[in-house]
Amino acid sequence: MKTLLTGLALTLAVAAPTAAQDLKPETITEAAAIRDKALTSDLAWDVLESLTTEVGPRLAGTDADIAAVKWGMAKFKELGFDKIWKEPVTIPVWRRTHESGAIVTPYPQPVVLTAIGKSVSTPKAGLTAEVMHFKNFAEMAAAPDGVAKGKIIYISERMERHRTGRGYGKSGAARFAGPVMAARKGAIGLIIRSIGTDDQRAPHTGGTYYSDDVTKIPAAALSNPDADQMDRIIARGKPVTFNLNLQTEDLPDAITYNVIGEITGSHAPDEIIAIGGHLDSWDLGTGAIDDASGIAITVAAAKLVAEGKRPRRTIRVVMFGAEEIGIYGGAQYLVDHKDNLKNHIIGAESDFGAGRVWALSSNVGRQSLHVVDAMLALMAPLNVVRSSAVAGGSADFGAMVNAGMPAMGLDQDGTNYFDLHHTPNDTLDKVDPEELAQNVAAWVVFVKLAADWEGRFDR
Amino acid sequence: MKTLLTGLALTLAVAAPTAAQDLKPETITEAAAIRDKALTSDLAWDVLESLTTEVGPRLAGTDADIAAVKWGMAKFKELGFDKIWKEPVTIPVWRRTHESGAIVTPYPQPVVLTAIGKSVSTPKAGLTAEVMHFKNFAEMAAAPDGVAKGKIIYISERMERHRTGRGYGKSGAARFAGPVMAARKGAIGLIIRSIGTDDQRAPHTGGTYYSDDVTKIPAAALSNPDADQMDRIIARGKPVTFNLNLQTEDLPDAITYNVIGEITGSHAPDEIIAIGGHLDSWDLGTGAIDDASGIAITVAAAKLVAEGKRPRRTIRVVMFGAEEIGIYGGAQYLVDHKDNLKNHIIGAESDFGAGRVWALSSNVGRQSLHVVDAMLALMAPLNVVRSSAVAGGSADFGAMVNAGMPAMGLDQDGTNYFDLHHTPNDTLDKVDPEELAQNVAAWVVFVKLAADWEGRFDR
Repeated sequence: MKTLLTGLALTLAVAAPTAAQDLKPETITEAAAIRDKALTSDLAWDVLESLTTEVGPRLAGTDADIAAVKWGMAKFKELGFDKIWKEPVTIPVWRRTHESGAIVTPYPQPVVLTAIGKSVSTPKAGLTAEVMHFKNFAEMAAAPDGVAKGKIIYISERMERHRTGRGYGKSGAARFAGPVMAARKGAIGLIIRSIGTDDQRAPHTGGTYYSDDVTKIPAAALSNPDADQMDRIIARGKPVTFNLNLQTEDLPDAITYNVIGEITGSHAPDEIIAIGGHLDSWDLGTGAIDDASGIAITVAAAKLVAEGKRPRRTIRVVMFGAEEIGIYGGAQYLVDHKDNLKNHIIGAESDFGAGRVWALSSNVGRQSLHVVDAMLALMAPLNVVRSSAVAGGSADFGAMVNAGMPAMGLDQDGTNYFDLHHTPNDTLDKVDPEELAQNVAAWVVFVKLAADWEGRFDR
Repeated sequence: MKTLLTGLALTLAVAAPTAAQDLKPETITEAAAIRDKALTSDLAWDVLESLTTEVGPRLAGTDADIAAVKWGMAKFKELGFDKIWKEPVTIPVWRRTHESGAIVTPYPQPVVLTAIGKSVSTPKAGLTAEVMHFKNFAEMAAAPDGVAKGKIIYISERMERHRTGRGYGKSGAARFAGPVMAARKGAIGLIIRSIGTDDQRAPHTGGTYYSDDVTKIPAAALSNPDADQMDRIIARGKPVTFNLNLQTEDLPDAITYNVIGEITGSHAPDEIIAIGGHLDSWDLGTGAIDDASGIAITVAAAKLVAEGKRPRRTIRVVMFGAEEIGIYGGAQYLVDHKDNLKNHIIGAESDFGAGRVWALSSNVGRQSLHVVDAMLALMAPLNVVRSSAVAGGSADFGAMVNAGMPAMGLDQDGTNYFDLHHTPNDTLDKVDPEELAQNVAAWVVFVKLAADWEGRFDR
């Protein structure tokens, strides 16, 4: 018994936190107070309203994108951030100038569609061809190469609605990889049902990837009611002819920026808690949920934490550039900061709308799990539970997390996110101010504890 | 007392129905059976699906409008109507070829708008001018003539949501009469918040009226989220400059048609129960709720009644032409049938979407109120109550009712109607099949009793 007891005591001694690993009771108390303050703060709403109103749509590489960069610098300054700077990111520039489509036969009528981001143009008069229907990407992929020679392929899969947004992964291939695969099948154009869960005539854009070894064919997303209409017409069994007219431009490379604001830490100013969202948006809406909300939530969280006792570590808010067109800002951030990776104590991005935070995911070492537990305890009144997912840093911090940066994920309820994602309807009126404030309340808990705890989250 | 009693007896004798004025018990029984059958019938849905899918948008004077006329003739034939014909209607033809708008200063960004129906064009490059804001039509009307010289007037009134649709009357003047009034104030263009209750970036078109004694100025409706954006920008207090670019065409007059199908009455074939909806739609949506639903409900009601014992009187279904652009079909119907007005026993149009019938209004002589009561009793299981409104025959039978035709109104729940009205979102998926069937169930009660009762509804 004695030996056994000694062994147990030893185990406990090893597992017990050192002084540096302890969370101070006042950190918990202060975090709770900031959390409660955040629930009644309008700050995130005001930041969100400001960006979406004063800049509006801000496709990377456009004048509006540069206006957003200026807005970001000015907003950090207005809010009293200690250090403010921007880091250049070289990006390709794409824009749409015309998009239209119509069913030509058997029941002629226009449809509402939008070019998938980066799509090449059709001929000026559009292209008219018979439609070949596939139920989903996999069915198309399984068909023989060349099977759709001279045709327009149509993929009709409906995206699943789910809190985690998992339907995006299931159905998204039609957009991400559809144009390349359709070209392999011989198609001269691709139309897909929008990767979205709504029933509005507001098609969902979003980027695709071309491959240099396959013909680049034009690609568009139908609004979901228009996809319903296609399905009904196809179901009648007659050949369907479609006219697709997309006019787009690839312009010379441009410079955009990652805009960075910091609250300097009191005791460990070189150690960084890195948070943020992306500043650019697609061109169709004003990017309220994607991702002005992420900018607003993280800016407000940093500011609210700073309004209390100065944090031990530095809080860095990154407004990433050019996420939508290919995560250029996120990639550049790793290039610019890889030499300082070890000082990135932990990172997290908010880029899944403005729905409530419902789960906390992490990607940290076991020695820091008690801090995650403490965060969860403080978030419990906000109805946040432990996630079963591993935090990946979201799109923009993804490269940093792959390189080793510890990460947290404040997982938002995405049930309705894909009603609006990448559509003209992504506008301010769709955000619930209470849900936005709940996000900030969860974020201040994470930021405050990560900034004031003296230990490391290293995996 | 005796004298009094004699007088009372005499009154009762006069008021008591004659044999011809009695509703036969079997009429009630048969109506109840058809009503119950209607609740489980897919016929209206199938008609609705057919028109919106096989024709789609059908702006009066376009090829699609003529396709709709052919569809109507064929549908009547397919359903076995006894007499089918069409009556020509001469109409002006208007169409939009381009529409765009943008806030130029202080926060440059594009907005989503649509030309108000019949709007004239701007110059090819659009027109750019400072915005003068009025809260509503009345405020604009009260301002001095010339006050908006060289400016674009913006009217920001929000339409009220109400079951009766009364907000349309309250706010609609901005569209119906706005361009004329704005021109009187010196404006060179008009933009209004959409006459609609939704929060989608789907602007509401709809006709306006120009006056020959005032300059015709171009006019557009912003989507409601874009109007919100305008309001936020205006609230910042800086001058707002706007670019409006509308390209529209007035084409030579064309011929469309009122398409008519009849179930011939068994005993009084010359006596007509006139029902219907309008066949044309605006160009933006597929006109599912406006007014393919009205066509579907009334065609199905006539067909379901005909499937029982042949009605005593003739049931006439009119698919009116060119309602949206100015009630041309309705006006022509009066011209073509005024000599036969007395044989139009009663009329009713369905043109307020596909929401449930919740109230029954009438515009009939007191001698027929017991028939209305009987209709109400049969509609009670459908949750239909007596309306406090006087039936006006809706838009297309309005002229006939003004000329003396008795009328009923099967008032639909319009709570959500103005979310979709005249927008791209007016598509089939927005119709609830059960609500559509409830409409048909109410209509068959009205049609059956009006057709088989031997009395007259004369006012």
